[in-house]
Amino acid sequence: MIKIGLIGFGYWGPNLARNFNAHPDLELHSICDFSGDRLEVAGRLYPQTRLVDNVEDFYRDTALDVVAIATPVSTHYELAKRALDEGKHLWLEKPMTEKVEQAEELIELSEAKGRTMLVDHTFVYTGAVRKIKEIIEKGELGDLLYYDSTRANLGLFQQDVDVIWDLAPHDISIMDYLMPVKKLAVSATGAHFYGNGIVPKALLTIYMEDNIIAHINVSWVSPVKIRDTFIAGTSKMILYDDTQPSEKVKVYDKGVELYETKEDLYHLKVQYRVGDMYAPKLEDHEALALETNHFVDCINNGHKPITNGEAGLEVVKILVASKKSLDTNGTPVDIS
Amino acid sequence: MIKIGLIGFGYWGPNLARNFNAHPDLELHSICDFSGDRLEVAGRLYPQTRLVDNVEDFYRDTALDVVAIATPVSTHYELAKRALDEGKHLWLEKPMTEKVEQAEELIELSEAKGRTMLVDHTFVYTGAVRKIKEIIEKGELGDLLYYDSTRANLGLFQQDVDVIWDLAPHDISIMDYLMPVKKLAVSATGAHFYGNGIVPKALLTIYMEDNIIAHINVSWVSPVKIRDTFIAGTSKMILYDDTQPSEKVKVYDKGVELYETKEDLYHLKVQYRVGDMYAPKLEDHEALALETNHFVDCINNGHKPITNGEAGLEVVKILVASKKSLDTNGTPVDIS
Amino acid sequence: MIKIGLIGFGYWGPNLARNFNAHPDLELHSICDFSGDRLEVAGRLYPQTRLVDNVEDFYRDTALDVVAIATPVSTHYELAKRALDEGKHLWLEKPMTEKVEQAEELIELSEAKGRTMLVDHTFVYTGAVRKIKEIIEKGELGDLLYYDSTRANLGLFQQDVDVIWDLAPHDISIMDYLMPVKKLAVSATGAHFYGNGIVPKALLTIYMEDNIIAHINVSWVSPVKIRDTFIAGTSKMILYDDTQPSEKVKVYDKGVELYETKEDLYHLKVQYRVGDMYAPKLEDHEALALETNHFVDCINNGHKPITNGEAGLEVVKILVASKKSLDTNGTPVDIS
Amino acid sequence: MIKIGLIGFGYWGPNLARNFNAHPDLELHSICDFSGDRLEVAGRLYPQTRLVDNVEDFYRDTALDVVAIATPVSTHYELAKRALDEGKHLWLEKPMTEKVEQAEELIELSEAKGRTMLVDHTFVYTGAVRKIKEIIEKGELGDLLYYDSTRANLGLFQQDVDVIWDLAPHDISIMDYLMPVKKLAVSATGAHFYGNGIVPKALLTIYMEDNIIAHINVSWVSPVKIRDTFIAGTSKMILYDDTQPSEKVKVYDKGVELYETKEDLYHLKVQYRVGDMYAPKLEDHEALALETNHFVDCINNGHKPITNGEAGLEVVKILVASKKSLDTNGTPVDIS
Repeated sequence: MIKIGLIGFGYWGPNLARNFNAHPDLELHSICDFSGDRLEVAGRLYPQTRLVDNVEDFYRDTALDVVAIATPVSTHYELAKRALDEGKHLWLEKPMTEKVEQAEELIELSEAKGRTMLVDHTFVYTGAVRKIKEIIEKGELGDLLYYDSTRANLGLFQQDVDVIWDLAPHDISIMDYLMPVKKLAVSATGAHFYGNGIVPKALLTIYMEDNIIAHINVSWVSPVKIRDTFIAGTSKMILYDDTQPSEKVKVYDKGVELYETKEDLYHLKVQYRVGDMYAPKLEDHEALALETNHFVDCINNGHKPITNGEAGLEVVKILVASKKSLDTNGTPVDIS
Repeated sequence: MIKIGLIGFGYWGPNLARNFNAHPDLELHSICDFSGDRLEVAGRLYPQTRLVDNVEDFYRDTALDVVAIATPVSTHYELAKRALDEGKHLWLEKPMTEKVEQAEELIELSEAKGRTMLVDHTFVYTGAVRKIKEIIEKGELGDLLYYDSTRANLGLFQQDVDVIWDLAPHDISIMDYLMPVKKLAVSATGAHFYGNGIVPKALLTIYMEDNIIAHINVSWVSPVKIRDTFIAGTSKMILYDDTQPSEKVKVYDKGVELYETKEDLYHLKVQYRVGDMYAPKLEDHEALALETNHFVDCINNGHKPITNGEAGLEVVKILVASKKSLDTNGTPVDIS
Repeated sequence: MIKIGLIGFGYWGPNLARNFNAHPDLELHSICDFSGDRLEVAGRLYPQTRLVDNVEDFYRDTALDVVAIATPVSTHYELAKRALDEGKHLWLEKPMTEKVEQAEELIELSEAKGRTMLVDHTFVYTGAVRKIKEIIEKGELGDLLYYDSTRANLGLFQQDVDVIWDLAPHDISIMDYLMPVKKLAVSATGAHFYGNGIVPKALLTIYMEDNIIAHINVSWVSPVKIRDTFIAGTSKMILYDDTQPSEKVKVYDKGVELYETKEDLYHLKVQYRVGDMYAPKLEDHEALALETNHFVDCINNGHKPITNGEAGLEVVKILVASKKSLDTNGTPVDIS
Repeated sequence: MIKIGLIGFGYWGPNLARNFNAHPDLELHSICDFSGDRLEVAGRLYPQTRLVDNVEDFYRDTALDVVAIATPVSTHYELAKRALDEGKHLWLEKPMTEKVEQAEELIELSEAKGRTMLVDHTFVYTGAVRKIKEIIEKGELGDLLYYDSTRANLGLFQQDVDVIWDLAPHDISIMDYLMPVKKLAVSATGAHFYGNGIVPKALLTIYMEDNIIAHINVSWVSPVKIRDTFIAGTSKMILYDDTQPSEKVKVYDKGVELYETKEDLYHLKVQYRVGDMYAPKLEDHEALALETNHFVDCINNGHKPITNGEAGLEVVKILVASKKSLDTNGTPVDIS
């Protein structure tokens, strides 16, 4: 049995605990949280698990094989460094770190120590995203054109980070997984219209190689919940609507072709193509269960996780650049 | 009877002709188009109307009281200037002109000549937009926060202008009508991913006074048709979905309030409010019919149209700034 | 040119006139209506067409090749009989006649006279229904199980017939076209809850051979418009939603198989199958235009129309039986 | 603490156990199930609860105050009678019993013994149904006209009862709660198209006083999930769509008024009214939690539950009549 210890039992930690506990090869060995209330809840659910209220005591337990960190992003780097320093495998919540250099250092450290490090980009493990990846890899979409997603609702207002750091990591990690293309620059716009310095609604544009572009719209202040993602290529286009109970992914055989005509160099010839739409059957599993499985496999076999440090770093790079662009009202920031 | 002549019988012109013809005070006196085919169609529909295939002949007819211009934007300024010079009232398609100075000149000219000039921002005359205006003016939304619209489908690719010049005038004119707030700067991003210099998908951010912000997403290359507009205030939020056959406008009694607590200056207190939603009954008329009515009233009474030259100029300013920002990957362009 | 005369220029007649007029082989020779107002409208639209206000004058014109009848159902038999007696081809609105014997007599007469008789079951000519027919004929659905449709909105209340005679002919004719299976009995229920003897909302059940069943729900008094039709087989199931602007037809690879197990005769084994869904591309034409084309072809080539007298008779049989069942609160009425 | 014992830990029982366990005044004293596997699951979740595998042992425990029965309907009567005979309060799953006389006997017995008996019509305790009840009681709908519901999906095929006994109790109990009007007769149609004597798709019509009518469409064999309920009155109409994540209940200010005109006794005057729609905010609680609360209150205060034996009996009456009508292809069965 692999002994896993979890730091952070707030909003997301309980989901990790539930999945770790359910995995046949993992033992949920200890849970650490500063809040006595949260530890009490943990104790009721997992009477056999060791509960600690500070990091020193947590790390004193040398029996641990793996550390999972589900705390605010500002604490990720310190806690993760310590885990790797002590030779533990690492499950790290997203966004990976606050700074690019921190993410780079963790990558190096995990490699130097020969330890598995997974960054929890959960959506990558959903049936929907996996099916879209499969469709793209088969070449069905043709040449990729754009990624356009909206993630909005009347959501939890965070007090210390902009909406971009809270919601966009989902979209950026999905996009980077589906479109592993070199990112060149970021432009981000938004307003802190409640006058508190926090931006609750923002737009990101990510410029990529080959004129591929991504638009990401994130908001904590929408009257309705929206989870729409468009992924378009020259041959087909996908709409992935995560609010749908079924038919989450629709593949449209629609496209447009442009070419200059010989007769008239100034005129384009535009050709539309409209065919069938289909909604593929999706795997029906909990993403976190699959991700936990994959994590254990990687630990056992020494493989690199799909959502590894490099994937986490890519997200951090874009977030850091976004913040800079946001502060200058959309001026593009180079990330190539 | 007021005699009206129409230049341009392509995509939109026939709709104007139909509405002008149906109005009891207007006589559809002449139609001008370069294309013989188009004139033939016009002749079949309006046997009594004079058909001309060039502008000189069109303007030679001194009986005309009003000129309506429904030609490509690059020709607007010349044609409109001539109409006003000759003392005609003017119905001008959107966008009003290519350049800011041209729009300003037409405004001055129409005033100097004492002639009515309407810029055809059709959506302003829809039952939906009029109802939203009424709701805002009653103060139901509280303080305005943002405007966010998406206008997308697999649409007509234009060969000479970016998608911004084609589709965004709708959204900008609606927004400016609903939120008559000082505009400060524009950031626009997009890619010409078909490699022909034309941007078929773009994002606009318009910064306004009081931290109000607008996000406008326009696209010719979407697999599905989208016509979503969100207009949010501190008290209520509106979703206007123009693709719905009914319940186009929904008013959500939802909001969020933030204030710093006395106890802890670093912490915000966030309060959510969720109440009923309602979908008001909308007037059921053709927007162009109402607009034609309004135009005739303005001519008869010397009133200024709702969508007058100043409204047209505001749109042109934002379009011109957008183009500049687009060329520099989102760098904001001042318009204050 | 085939000379066609139209009787009835009320709600549906103008659509016929428009399509007849647009067909290259048809000449819209005359229009007959009792109402001077309606004739005036007709005259404005078709200045070249002969207008008559009574049937005697209409039939006095011996030049006519074809008669189209778009009047209330109570007049169909007399008008149609006369047209056939005079040797005209016939386009007859649905429902074909009030009584079964009348429909049978018209079928005999049209055959005796060697004339083409089309009953206007318009929906059979839509891209959606034609595509569904194609799918069924390829055997994609497996063995047919059921047809279930709802046709409802806040609609035109008729004063002389129940909602069944007004709306159900659409569904019955679609069903009969898609499922040409022997009909056995009909049960119909409803209430005249406005106390005027007219039933504005009703349910039909049609029992067919091989345990196939149809449920048809029609209503003039629904707060929302519904046009849902389910057609299910053992292999696949179709949802046809005519209110959708796109993706009107969805084919679900879903089914259930039941068989008794050997081990336990009292227990069934149930197996579910869930696969992809697809929405086929549909032909994009006006149904009436295609139907007009088909009618002209049938006249020219002596073929029998798809929606011929037998199809019309089938609908009348079911309507007549429905009325009888409705009057006895659902008691089944034999139609085999 | 009130000691409660639960018989049946299959599909629904675990939901009862969870809610009983969470209630501050209830002690989940014992769980009884024939299946060792189910008892093992129960033991893991409720280590403190007594587990028994037969009814004799279950009832031997005299400490019990309340018995909850969540077993197949064929066992309800015997188990419930025994519980009441032994002086226990009773929570009984729906449908209450197989036969009308059995339900009547249980009602008498519970009254004779002075014990609380609740029939678990869960939907009556949802925020949606409670809001609709409130709207109806305020008179907003005017005079009631009809109830029309569809409950369909690719659902669990039952081997011993028709779909009517499985799904319709939900709709009948909601309808009876919202429209406490005298029921007169039932007509039911369906087909056992898998050839196994079980009807997986059926239509019910329930005739009520004052020409009020209910149509209920239930199906285990639909490609999509449907949970639509329409409740219409002369003034307003409600659409309750339980598949919506928000805006489950919509109230339409739509109606139609008919009256005979003085001028012409043969003609009706029809007046349509279309106004705003609104979606009221709904209570956000688990229905079972509220129902458990209500049950405990009733036990403590000697009040009759909202979903009492009489409510359960009404459902059984309609189900029994439906079966009879189903066997005769829709022939109406009197229940007045």
